[in-house]
Amino acid sequence: MTDGSVTTLLEVLTGKPVVVTTLLQQIVEADTERAAELDIAEGDNINYRVVVLKNEDDDQPLIYAESYTPIARLQKEFKHDLMKADIPIGRIMAQRKIESRREIRHIETTLNEELSDLFGVPHETPMLSRTYDIISHGMVLIRITETFPLTNFSKNSDGDPLTALTDYTTPTE
Amino acid sequence: MTDGSVTTLLEVLTGKPVVVTTLLQQIVEADTERAAELDIAEGDNINYRVVVLKNEDDDQPLIYAESYTPIARLQKEFKHDLMKADIPIGRIMAQRKIESRREIRHIETTLNEELSDLFGVPHETPMLSRTYDIISHGMVLIRITETFPLTNFSKNSDGDPLTALTDYTTPTE
Repeated sequence: MTDGSVTTLLEVLTGKPVVVTTLLQQIVEADTERAAELDIAEGDNINYRVVVLKNEDDDQPLIYAESYTPIARLQKEFKHDLMKADIPIGRIMAQRKIESRREIRHIETTLNEELSDLFGVPHETPMLSRTYDIISHGMVLIRITETFPLTNFSKNSDGDPLTALTDYTTPTE
Repeated sequence: MTDGSVTTLLEVLTGKPVVVTTLLQQIVEADTERAAELDIAEGDNINYRVVVLKNEDDDQPLIYAESYTPIARLQKEFKHDLMKADIPIGRIMAQRKIESRREIRHIETTLNEELSDLFGVPHETPMLSRTYDIISHGMVLIRITETFPLTNFSKNSDGDPLTALTDYTTPTE
């Protein structure tokens, strides 16, 4: 068992420290669909954060991630860390000693020109997206969607880590 | 964020399904030291489980793991799964929807002839051990010690995943 963060998994896979760069972070109001997903009221405040995970010494994005966090469910310190700085969510949770579990919601492949440009891959390269919830006290604390080019993690020496990475959040039985 | 289990991490690293083989599983009574570690009373019952993680189609052990679980803290279904079968603990917790966090207790290298034989490595090969607690409702649910030869995960293509694997449970900030 591990701290279970994608950040740390990427550090294992790449053998190098991973850092988070925040592209966007703002408070938004939940629309009908988002409110239903997070089990909050329409109009409730959500922290919307968009980040890119990269290796420390390399500008090449590894993963693009969007997260939605109902503000009212955050402890003050967690909220501070999340809104203030480029700290991976897994690390904030470890520091704040938050007990949680994860549940995957869906996995899909799409074409996305904007993200293709971000990753520097051709527009025809399929993007893989995984959406999952971090659940604490039986409520969704954070909904995360992670996206990366299908080709990003397929160069491992023995086997196909891409498949494994895709499955990484899936309760396996 | 992921299901965070070592089983799944090994599947990512090796690109193949990982299975658990139980070597020993028995109820023992807590001695003074163990009771203090788990914050239970001396003489309380503990489930002691020793397993080896391997790739499905390969007899070579990847990781040797010992776990100590205070029986009184287990829900009935969790207890059943843990004592019955070769199910990785991370999978049991996902199935049972148990919220938790992990805290590393210590990391050490030792020489161990018995484990060297198990892994088929020379007796001079240092063994790396990581001990960590899975904490739920503020109490230690399971204490796990994982051991593997220092040489086991040092053949990755880019970088040194061994270091990363060692740090994998460490709260990083």
